[in-house]
Amino acid sequence: MNSRIALLIEYSGKKFHGSQYQKGVRTVQGELERALAVLARQPIRATLSGRTDSGVHARGQVAHADWPEALDEAGRVDVLWRLNGILDRDISITKMASVPDDFHARFSAVEREYCYSILARPQRSALLKDTHAFVPARLDLAAMQRAAEQILGKHDFTGFQSTSTDKTVPICNVFRSQILNLREGELEFWIRADHFVYNMVRIICGTLIDVGLGKRDADCVSLALQCGDRNIAGPTAPAQGLTLDSVKYPRAFELWD
Amino acid sequence: MNSRIALLIEYSGKKFHGSQYQKGVRTVQGELERALAVLARQPIRATLSGRTDSGVHARGQVAHADWPEALDEAGRVDVLWRLNGILDRDISITKMASVPDDFHARFSAVEREYCYSILARPQRSALLKDTHAFVPARLDLAAMQRAAEQILGKHDFTGFQSTSTDKTVPICNVFRSQILNLREGELEFWIRADHFVYNMVRIICGTLIDVGLGKRDADCVSLALQCGDRNIAGPTAPAQGLTLDSVKYPRAFELWD
Repeated sequence: MNSRIALLIEYSGKKFHGSQYQKGVRTVQGELERALAVLARQPIRATLSGRTDSGVHARGQVAHADWPEALDEAGRVDVLWRLNGILDRDISITKMASVPDDFHARFSAVEREYCYSILARPQRSALLKDTHAFVPARLDLAAMQRAAEQILGKHDFTGFQSTSTDKTVPICNVFRSQILNLREGELEFWIRADHFVYNMVRIICGTLIDVGLGKRDADCVSLALQCGDRNIAGPTAPAQGLTLDSVKYPRAFELWD
Repeated sequence: MNSRIALLIEYSGKKFHGSQYQKGVRTVQGELERALAVLARQPIRATLSGRTDSGVHARGQVAHADWPEALDEAGRVDVLWRLNGILDRDISITKMASVPDDFHARFSAVEREYCYSILARPQRSALLKDTHAFVPARLDLAAMQRAAEQILGKHDFTGFQSTSTDKTVPICNVFRSQILNLREGELEFWIRADHFVYNMVRIICGTLIDVGLGKRDADCVSLALQCGDRNIAGPTAPAQGLTLDSVKYPRAFELWD
């Protein structure tokens, strides 16, 4: 009897060619399926909550997979420890839960939250080089926060969608859009929504950075939302600043929260 | 005319054999002297505020060096940019100042502050593996904080000194000794003092972790301070959790602060 499991996954995006399986290159899905197969002694497909680009990190990516036999609590703990023993050090499974067969890591998700980290100071950082976008200038935080607030609520995000990809429904309801000022020059942008379009967070961040630099007016965010024109928003900010923080599912699934 | 400069330095300890120059291996001092020599076209000696072990990181290490000619503001900015262009990505100079000839990165220092990061949860982390000590268990924070408070004030730290090294004066005045609980399982221990003995922070952290695990009583800290016996304190915690956060000098030197 199959047993569907959900996995909470951390990874550093640096040495992955993104999350989605691709033949011949190292991906998060590929590594996860390889580890599951080693342990189960048969091929196992893993389905992620969503795709992250090459270089993007995750603290709370979620996947589901169908384990070939039913797992009790002890069995799940055993599989969890063994998976972390097989996986390389730049990917780890932090939690595991048994879920009903109608749980789907992607389609059951109701919210996702991302954090984008920015280092704004004259000189580069040896410690934050793989986790922050480096902006060698001072940023106007008040202007960035004004721009960020315009994102809140339900909008058509066609103007913040990569033009080089298949389109999904562009309507997203944004529940959080906030700049945090952690210490001198270290900023975080947090965004939580029911849905994201491709490259949306990185395009929003590229726009916010331009606003902080004075290259664009804070109101360009509202304008880009209204017009749906990708040329109004700023450039796509670099991948290494982005971390998928968490994915939320209906309480009924009784995951790890 | 020589011009003494002070440098504020960041590095990730992972790929360095410590900070101090050693022939044939990659060290912070060695890399810094190499970059200075390339730029000045002559050998330049760099003196660090203190030694950090292999694996230990720094956000605020300080060095001084004697540049072969006087540097004005524009000259300093130029040297700073070029140094960061020459140095590898795991070391960076964040600030530079001209200082009088009696400034000495080690002997002029009046305080140093370290941060030790701990991850306490059942499964390892892909994101924090190089910056945190991993403890696969729950820790008793209240007991750890009680133990940490006993460190405060002026004590003889012979009981927290590595036995395998030359001894320095073991009297240290500790101004800060505090546990911060950042998020579930992520702790930081902050310590600021006028002086540190060899391996002191790592031995204190090894002791605090033992206290958190219930292996040692919180009062063992006071006892180790009174008796000066290295066997009363806990083991030396791993290097990768430790970061030299800052070094403080008298205001008269007018550094970057």
